[in-house]
Amino acid sequence: MTESTGKSRIGVTGLAVMGANLARNIARRGTPTAVHNRTTAKMTEFIKEYGDEGPFTGCESVEDFVNALETPRRIIVMVKAGRPVDAVIEELTPLLDEGDIIIDAGNSHFPDTVRRTEECAANGIRFMGIGVSGGEEGALLGPSIMPGGDPSAYAEVEEVLTSIAAVVDGTPCCVHVGPGGAGHYVKMVHNGIEYADIQLIAEAYDLLTHVAGLDAPAIAKIFEEWNSGDLDSFLIEITAKVLAKTDEKTGGPLVDVIVDQAEQKGTGTWTAVDALGLGIPLTGITEAVFARGLSALRDERKKASTTLSGPAPGQGADRDDLVEDIRLALYASKVVAYAQGFAQMRAASEANDWDLDLGAMATIWRGGCIIRARFLNRIRDAYAEHGDVENLLMVPYFTDAVANAQDAWRRVVVVATEQGVAIPAFSSSLSYYDGYRRERGPANLIQGLRDFFGAHTYKRTDAEGYWHTRWSQDGTEVASGGQPRSEASGSTSLPAGTDTPASEPDTGPKAE
Amino acid sequence: MTESTGKSRIGVTGLAVMGANLARNIARRGTPTAVHNRTTAKMTEFIKEYGDEGPFTGCESVEDFVNALETPRRIIVMVKAGRPVDAVIEELTPLLDEGDIIIDAGNSHFPDTVRRTEECAANGIRFMGIGVSGGEEGALLGPSIMPGGDPSAYAEVEEVLTSIAAVVDGTPCCVHVGPGGAGHYVKMVHNGIEYADIQLIAEAYDLLTHVAGLDAPAIAKIFEEWNSGDLDSFLIEITAKVLAKTDEKTGGPLVDVIVDQAEQKGTGTWTAVDALGLGIPLTGITEAVFARGLSALRDERKKASTTLSGPAPGQGADRDDLVEDIRLALYASKVVAYAQGFAQMRAASEANDWDLDLGAMATIWRGGCIIRARFLNRIRDAYAEHGDVENLLMVPYFTDAVANAQDAWRRVVVVATEQGVAIPAFSSSLSYYDGYRRERGPANLIQGLRDFFGAHTYKRTDAEGYWHTRWSQDGTEVASGGQPRSEASGSTSLPAGTDTPASEPDTGPKAE
Repeated sequence: MTESTGKSRIGVTGLAVMGANLARNIARRGTPTAVHNRTTAKMTEFIKEYGDEGPFTGCESVEDFVNALETPRRIIVMVKAGRPVDAVIEELTPLLDEGDIIIDAGNSHFPDTVRRTEECAANGIRFMGIGVSGGEEGALLGPSIMPGGDPSAYAEVEEVLTSIAAVVDGTPCCVHVGPGGAGHYVKMVHNGIEYADIQLIAEAYDLLTHVAGLDAPAIAKIFEEWNSGDLDSFLIEITAKVLAKTDEKTGGPLVDVIVDQAEQKGTGTWTAVDALGLGIPLTGITEAVFARGLSALRDERKKASTTLSGPAPGQGADRDDLVEDIRLALYASKVVAYAQGFAQMRAASEANDWDLDLGAMATIWRGGCIIRARFLNRIRDAYAEHGDVENLLMVPYFTDAVANAQDAWRRVVVVATEQGVAIPAFSSSLSYYDGYRRERGPANLIQGLRDFFGAHTYKRTDAEGYWHTRWSQDGTEVASGGQPRSEASGSTSLPAGTDTPASEPDTGPKAE
Repeated sequence: MTESTGKSRIGVTGLAVMGANLARNIARRGTPTAVHNRTTAKMTEFIKEYGDEGPFTGCESVEDFVNALETPRRIIVMVKAGRPVDAVIEELTPLLDEGDIIIDAGNSHFPDTVRRTEECAANGIRFMGIGVSGGEEGALLGPSIMPGGDPSAYAEVEEVLTSIAAVVDGTPCCVHVGPGGAGHYVKMVHNGIEYADIQLIAEAYDLLTHVAGLDAPAIAKIFEEWNSGDLDSFLIEITAKVLAKTDEKTGGPLVDVIVDQAEQKGTGTWTAVDALGLGIPLTGITEAVFARGLSALRDERKKASTTLSGPAPGQGADRDDLVEDIRLALYASKVVAYAQGFAQMRAASEANDWDLDLGAMATIWRGGCIIRARFLNRIRDAYAEHGDVENLLMVPYFTDAVANAQDAWRRVVVVATEQGVAIPAFSSSLSYYDGYRRERGPANLIQGLRDFFGAHTYKRTDAEGYWHTRWSQDGTEVASGGQPRSEASGSTSLPAGTDTPASEPDTGPKAE
């Protein structure tokens, strides 16, 4: 070992930028930290460059690394998600003692975390999956941390994790989320919400450009103003900065020379897929993911732009009114996107017995992470005042906020529709709102159709049980007992291979 | 064996309503058919009731069943999807000879079909997964059949399958789809498209009820008229019948007493999940799935209906104009939903090397199945005239259809937005259309933001390669080589566990 300082309190293996910054953040607080990297050179480099920042112990081998740690050992693994995480676990396991703790701080998909928790438990090792948000800067200066895993394991690392987390109003942005994959699950939803936030900003930018006719610098000023109000957030703040940026090469706004193809990592997709599995309507985040997919079809769009016709050019609305309308539409759509995301976490918590404290999730997202915003104080307050809330739209603060915004919101959807500007997130959020506040929607017709072509039966508003009309026979209605011919949509398991035509009872009908 | 008629040409095991009707359909054409059911009583019942309909051989044991078949054996399995299919395969395998054929005619999830194809191949058995659509009536009188699997196996069953399929304009609704899971995949997308069709009908019904102020019998007449035009289809036809149905108990329209909670089986969800995995924007089908999920939240909606406010009551538009506008909006939205579904099949075909003939898919959907419609002739013609089409919206017929409908389509979205009627599928389809025909969308801002908080880099419209602006440092722009910091959104693998922050190259940034 180099610069041995005796046993270390915690270890970090994987010294890429995220692992390195996390290790530096820990050691800078005075916590003895052992560091290791598969490629030793990277570890020695790290020690040379940052060794004097804190009580580091550089370890050349995994054995040195494990021996450098006090027990129970606390090992943060920050390597490429997927197979590499399993590889590190396999390498560490034989060297560890009962009760040692392995902490995966990468963005693993939560089902992997659930599996690894079980595999490690079988070897007497306590596994944790913790979500870390805030980018490399956050990792170094204070991220939002979403730790999942055994409470006894969290108790062993709580002091270190809370010491390096971002702090808002004296509260560290770190709290035990729940067991197993809960931490990585919440991080996944955080990223999904981030997709919706960014898409809503992009739609507002599009409207300000093509309906209000403003240029990037003018729109930058608008976002700067918006950042002093309800929309105050990191993303609105940096939107103003990105839009204000002048391109060195052209002398014009940088955004005007950036290609309009959004790329993405898997987390937004994971969130949408999970919502589909839970049967939770998650239109805002999902439309955001699809919008990025559409943006990627640049060559197709180029061809379509000269083939597919748009509406006749409309007269622009009054600019000042329009700008304020767009601000309100963005805010109302944001409320819906968060309401959906929190409803999803609530459903997942019930499905997995995680007992998530949703107010605490809002609290730890207030700092360090990409979606940090004043807005999250409102959500924290909502849960503090009203306890378990089915849907945030039902909390007076948000009920009123959307009520006050809805006329403007509708005007924005109308002008965008008339002038041919795509607003998938604005409009799907409004449709969700209008659908959610309907005591009776049109799904009665859907059930009638399903009973006609598949004899799936339907429920009556004036009688118990399930009913079937013999549409193709004598047209009479017959009682069908207490069970539908297919399960309710509330939760569609994936793969739902057993809920298919051939799965009907022998007397059952064909299903589509 | 009972009623032995010597070796049978094909066998059917699993005599629930679908299997029984399929067997009857086959034998009625004169094809010697062996039938078997795990519970023998069901088989004997079947023979007693239908034995005289054709050359059946009832088999009490699996051994009898296998011995009753000519070789190569052709065995149709119609049991509950999931584990039961595997159980039947395991039971049959040791009794079969090299080259025998097992045909899963249930609605299995295509990844299971891919797996079973490999497992059977390892035992020298040719496995086929065939999608069968049309409900129990279709199974008996003529379904749409989507056979997937080894071409040599299909050659052995083509005669039987085409003989029982629905026939349109002299063409049987049955064609070899592709290898492996291709048949069940196409059936899955068929069901997904059916979700979109039904949701669009429900939104039209909702608008005719709450904006045009019409009652069910009046709306039934409208759908009856629509069924004689471009919208001519099975679903529009039965919508008229369902809406016209009088309830025996109340004397009013039946739909008015049906509970507005749509139920669903997994296939719509599978389709949406698959599209997310492929990175294909599939907004119509996905919004339809989410709309069913929202409809299931009946108790929440009831509470929300008295809490969340809507728009001030608007003055209804001119009724006649509105009805025609809604018809055009429904048609345009339907074109988009099909364009998305066919784009998804195209992407899946490329991803799996299935070489799908999309025109043939439209052809076999023209009869026997739930989405059968005149409309599918237009799609068949589109592929016949234009070959491989990236997006059906680009085919002149559909380009013009949407162009002619778009003003009405926009008016419908506007009036629904102003009057607070949820139209997730109408509006998301329009946003897709408006997004698809944009040469340059707002995703350039998204890339700018991603570069700011995650250093994900961006492409320039005026230079090759990827670029990064040192936002938090000196603000200068630096070239970042030929690779982005994250993969393009075009295809997001599921689980994308390797595309996560810690997966960045050592020099890479944190990703969200």
